[in-house]
This record gives sequence, structure tokens and C-alpha cells, in this order.
Amino acid sequence: MSLIVQKYGGTSVGDLDRIRHVAERVHRYRDQGHDVVVVVSAMSGETNRLDALGKELVKRPHAREMDVLLAAGEQVSIALLAIALVARGVPARSFLGYQVPIRTDAAYGRARIESIETEALREAIADGVVPVIAGFQGVTADGALTTLGRGGSDTSAVAVAAALEADECEICTDVDGVYTADPRLEPHARRLDTVTFEEMLELASLGSKVLHPRSVEFAGKYQVPLRVLSTFVNEGGTLITMENESVEQPLVSGIAHTRDEAKITMSGVPDVPGVASRILGPISAAAIEVDMIVQNTGADGLTDFTFTVKRGDYEKALELLAPVKASLNARRLEGDASIAKVSVVGVGMRSHAGVATRVFDALAAENINIQMISTSEIKISVVVAERYMELAVRTIHSEFKLGEST
Amino acid sequence: MSLIVQKYGGTSVGDLDRIRHVAERVHRYRDQGHDVVVVVSAMSGETNRLDALGKELVKRPHAREMDVLLAAGEQVSIALLAIALVARGVPARSFLGYQVPIRTDAAYGRARIESIETEALREAIADGVVPVIAGFQGVTADGALTTLGRGGSDTSAVAVAAALEADECEICTDVDGVYTADPRLEPHARRLDTVTFEEMLELASLGSKVLHPRSVEFAGKYQVPLRVLSTFVNEGGTLITMENESVEQPLVSGIAHTRDEAKITMSGVPDVPGVASRILGPISAAAIEVDMIVQNTGADGLTDFTFTVKRGDYEKALELLAPVKASLNARRLEGDASIAKVSVVGVGMRSHAGVATRVFDALAAENINIQMISTSEIKISVVVAERYMELAVRTIHSEFKLGEST
Repeated sequence: MSLIVQKYGGTSVGDLDRIRHVAERVHRYRDQGHDVVVVVSAMSGETNRLDALGKELVKRPHAREMDVLLAAGEQVSIALLAIALVARGVPARSFLGYQVPIRTDAAYGRARIESIETEALREAIADGVVPVIAGFQGVTADGALTTLGRGGSDTSAVAVAAALEADECEICTDVDGVYTADPRLEPHARRLDTVTFEEMLELASLGSKVLHPRSVEFAGKYQVPLRVLSTFVNEGGTLITMENESVEQPLVSGIAHTRDEAKITMSGVPDVPGVASRILGPISAAAIEVDMIVQNTGADGLTDFTFTVKRGDYEKALELLAPVKASLNARRLEGDASIAKVSVVGVGMRSHAGVATRVFDALAAENINIQMISTSEIKISVVVAERYMELAVRTIHSEFKLGEST
Repeated sequence: MSLIVQKYGGTSVGDLDRIRHVAERVHRYRDQGHDVVVVVSAMSGETNRLDALGKELVKRPHAREMDVLLAAGEQVSIALLAIALVARGVPARSFLGYQVPIRTDAAYGRARIESIETEALREAIADGVVPVIAGFQGVTADGALTTLGRGGSDTSAVAVAAALEADECEICTDVDGVYTADPRLEPHARRLDTVTFEEMLELASLGSKVLHPRSVEFAGKYQVPLRVLSTFVNEGGTLITMENESVEQPLVSGIAHTRDEAKITMSGVPDVPGVASRILGPISAAAIEVDMIVQNTGADGLTDFTFTVKRGDYEKALELLAPVKASLNARRLEGDASIAKVSVVGVGMRSHAGVATRVFDALAAENINIQMISTSEIKISVVVAERYMELAVRTIHSEFKLGEST
């Protein structure tokens, strides 16, 4: 008998039939003798609907009140799931963020969990009641409602699991695990039985939408065993493990991709200290997120500076840099909004040289030009023209034989 | 400078334009130097939508969780109104029931307000902030959410006004006051400048939908000056007063009607003690509300027993009585679902005999048959065939010259 925290995303509770299905699934776990704590997102589309309401009402809605507005979404879904459970004879009780309470700081719209009091939850569990907790929301020390930002329900679930020292935190979603690549791009993609927290963190932040990076980070920090699995299929799933649990690490675990990028190059700028911050200063002041940054070694006292931003920020970033170009007397300011990033992730590459070379060789063999490169200990990212993205994913997937069982 | 509590119903906050309009209206009161506290219902249709969701999910949804579900409606509207106010430069803050807090008993779905703590509200007011309070909801001593039942937001507003000792409680709605009769039936209906609490209570409980009876009762008990007025028109309104404020009472203040009724007659039952409870017992056991009850004096040891129920309960009531008819050996069980009730209300009739006679005579002159009669100190109700309802209202309206200014 274990204590299992299960998180159900918006798609899993997207309509009444699905809510009934989730109730049945929770019921089955209970029948197997487990204690279950459930964390639920808003019904799919609901958070967007509420968000749009507030933003249609006024141009810059007050952040504190936006959180009150958005938090209503989870209130509906926890009530409905608790109703469905009770109707099946499973004692259940809904918990809003403030009722747990899940304490956060006061950064409305992107609050961070500071602590979770477990007394009320433990009492419910001891009474045989399934707590159905609103994800995504919390409460400040002053009693104000907060929300944790997109993907916040994953973080809520992991935080609850950590606070309760649960045996496992299941992220129940509409995919049945973490794959070696996006199966829509690469038909030979294979589901991983296990993946390390570090790898998952890279995959998550690289646009593999299975888990929110913050929740993976949180799970790693508090060593919460995390499993990604399907709400709708009764098998499979991927367990996210501590690195040392697997004896032999595969060189490469998975390939992530994202097409939502654009690159900007300012070339022929003086190769002197302070140039990077003069270029990126206005960008970060405008709260535009910069991803990859590459500066080539200069020649003739001049250098080229390239970075990537989200595609939606592309036009604005170009505008902001026009005056900088002039003041730096740079040769050219240019960009490309049709690029994609492909990333190869694996803890195994930490101890094996040559992974990068194999990636570059494989791409070269397919005549795919690499526009930018960035690496970390367990990740190699390359920027390619968007039209080569699928080919790049399949080429690397095949190079490392990821479709074959290990 | 006064402290005014304003309650806006679902129609008044039914879409974003209307919410902006309400914000403008609150702003105007502030500019006139008043302190304003706002109580808001859910956007029109939202409570019904949530209610239907819960009831479609399972046959008998858990009452506690239904309240969590329903309370989400007001959460959305207070957040939106607070956003609209802040965007206009009016400092505002939303208050959920538990944040005020508005304490209630634990009768989910029809909770009663036990107390309202005013500290947080007074602090906000002192800071120049407009509190925007969720109507219809409260919190138990255990921290569970509750709702007050239909019309609960009116009650919330009156209770808040009483707790804050406000100078006036404005019920802002889509009609501009209380009329001598429904203007859709009687074109000569006139808006009353004042009406007493007692009269309002009778009018409200008789289906004149302007105010919920509980809120009127509450306002009378705590002597909260209550005004019904339009959110959309900047004049008019009806002040609900203590009786002794008007020197001269009109004989009759208004005429209410309701067509949502049905009558059931069991005739030829033994005229012995206990018959009434044998007939009404199964009806009340099925939680069917009985309105008027009439039992004629018997002859030959037999009597006829007639009562009215809501039209929606008619078929079920008839079914329940079939076995009772048999066991009482009654002569007949019959009913009529096409009746209407017309009620004449006025504190003046308390001290003036003859009002009833004038009502009956006027109806007789129009050949309208009166099927049932019931009276209270300040009210005479008659049941007539539904097709005569409009004529009955107009006839009595004209008999008491209600269309003419006093």
C-alpha cells in the first residue's frame, strides 16, 4: 500500500465523460489498496477563456485580480471530480489552494510555492477521504489568491507529493510517456521506460511538452519519484529517476525540437568588452527572453553577434536593435524567423566524447546546414532552417539507433 | 458623504460592456464623495450553467461540492469588476466569501449567514479601496465554502450593509423599482417611490421578482434602508421604508401575480381530525412546497380539501395522492394546472375593512370566477383560471386607482 499523488491535466478532465473516467481510475487505485491524493487542472480551454475575458475587459488587467479570475477554473474541476468520486462511493473532498493551504509568495501570475501545510490533507487521508486539490493556485500569507503560471498544476502536484513524502507522483496526461523523439515527426520513436531528472529537465525546457520544467526541477530537488503516464491507457508510462538508478546510461536518450524560434544577427560590431550587454540590454529590458547566444571570434577588430528569441518577439527585437546598430556603427542587422532548434539530450554524453561529432557528421551527410550550436553537459542544440527540422530529428534518431529497444 | 452598499445582479454584470458600465457607475458615486462597497452576483446564466454541469455529471451531486462548484461563478464576476475598476483608476479589491469572511451555517445550498466580520472591509474602505464582494457565498466555521441559495446575493448585500451600518443598500437590477403591478400586464402600472418592508415581503414572496424575500426580511430585521433601482437608468428607484415613515398609507400598494401554480382537490373525504395531515403528509415528505390550503366546511360528514403547489410538482403530487385517496375512501381526486394567483398587497388594508369585498366585487363584475381565497393582514390572494389572470390584475389595479399618482 502506497501513497500516490496523481495529477490530471486539463485534457484529462476536459468534459464530464472524462471526469467520470478519472473518477473510475482513482477508484481502481483505491481498490488496489493505495491512498490517493489528486491534483487537478482546469477543464481544457477554461484557463484560456478566463484569461481572454480579463484581457478583453481592459488592456492591462490588474495582476492580483487576474489570479482571482483564473483560479476559478480549478475550482470548477475539483468540485466536479469530487462529485464524481462521491457518487461512485469513494469518499472525497475538494481542497482549494487556500484550504490546503498551499502558501506562495505574492508574485501574482507566476507565484512560487513556499510551503504546503499537510495537516488537513493527512487528516483527510487518515479518514479514508481522497483529497482533490486545485492545482495552479495558492494563497499568500495575507490571504490573497495566487496562481503559479502556465504548467503550474504539475508543480502543485510535485510539491504536494514532496510535502506528503508520497511514494510516487503520477502525471496523468494525454500521452503515455516520454519518447525518444516526437512520434508525429519520427514514426520509429520509442517510449522510454526511464529517463533521468536532468534529461527530463532539458527535454521539458526544450519544448517537449510532457512536463513543465519547474515541476521537474522541483521533483529532482525533493527527490520525488515522478511518472508520466496516460490517463486513458492503462499501461506504459515513463519513470523519471535519479541518475544512479540505471547502471548503464544510454549515450543519447531523446531528441527534442522547437520551431517557435527566430534568430537575429548583428554583424561587424566592434570586438570590445561591453558590446554584448549593449546589444542584449534593450532586449532584456523589454522582457524578451533570449535563448541561444553565439559570438564568433572576431577579425579586424570586428565580430558577429547572434542570438535567438521566441518567434513572437522577433519583430519587436529587430525594432529595438535598430538604434543600437546605429550607435555601434555595426555593419548589418539581420534576422531569420524560419529556423528551428533540434536538441540531443542524454546523461550518457557527459562521459563520452564524440557525441557532438556524430551529430554534426550525420547532419552533414544529409546536407543540413547547422546555423548555430550550443551545448551543455548533457545536451547539444543546433539551429537549422525550419524546413530541415523533421529530417534533422529523424537523421539523429537513426544515427543513435533510438528506435531500437535497449 | 455616505457609505453605500450596492448590489449588482447577474444581468447587470452579464457581459464585459455591462461590467464596464457598472464600474463607471461605481466611479460616479465615488466622485460624489460616497464610500462604496459592491456585492456582485455571477454573470447571468453562469450559476445555471455550473448547476447543470454538476447535475449532468451525476444524479445526486454531493451538496458540499456543489457549493464549491457554484461559488466559482461569483469569483469570476468580482475579479472582472475589480479589474474594470482598477483600470479606471478606482482602487478596488475583490473579496471572496471566505476572505471577508461571511460566516454561515453548514446547510450547503441554502446556508444562512451567521455573522460578517467587518475588519478587513473597514480597513479597505479606510484605505480608499472599493471592496468588491462575492454575493451568494460564505464559509463555515470549518472553512468549507457554502452558498445561500437562489437570490442569495440580495441577502449578502443586505447583511453586509447591516454589518457595516451602511447608510443605504442599493439593489441595482434591470428594473427601475417596484411597480403597482407588472407593467407588462398593466400598462398603467406606476412605480412606487416607497413601499414598506412588510409589503415588499409579500410582493417578493408572491413572485414579484424584484427582491428575494429573505433579503427583505433581513433588511427589515436590521432596519437597513433598502432601495431598488436600475443599473442602467440614472433615476427613479423605490425606497423600502419602515411603516411609520409614511404618514398616510394607501389602502393598496401593489398587485402581484404568479402563473406557476396548480391546484389539487380531494373531495368527499371524511370530515374528521387528522385528514389534512394524511393528505399533506406524503406531499411534504416529498419536499413539495404547498402554498394555499383551503378546506370547506363539511356536510354529511364529508368535506373537500384543496391546496396549491408549484406547477412543476403537479404530476408528482397527484401520483402521491392516488393511494391516499383509496385509503381515505375519498370521492374524487382532481386537479387543475392552468390556474394563476393574483394578490393584492397593502399595509393600509390592515386598518380598513372592505378591501376584500371591493376585490371580490370588482372581479365578479368582470365575470371572473374566484376558485380559492387566502388572506393575511396586509394581503388578499385569489386563485383564478390562468386565462383570466391579466384581466384580474387590470381590474383590481383600476378598482383601487393605482395608476394615478397619490
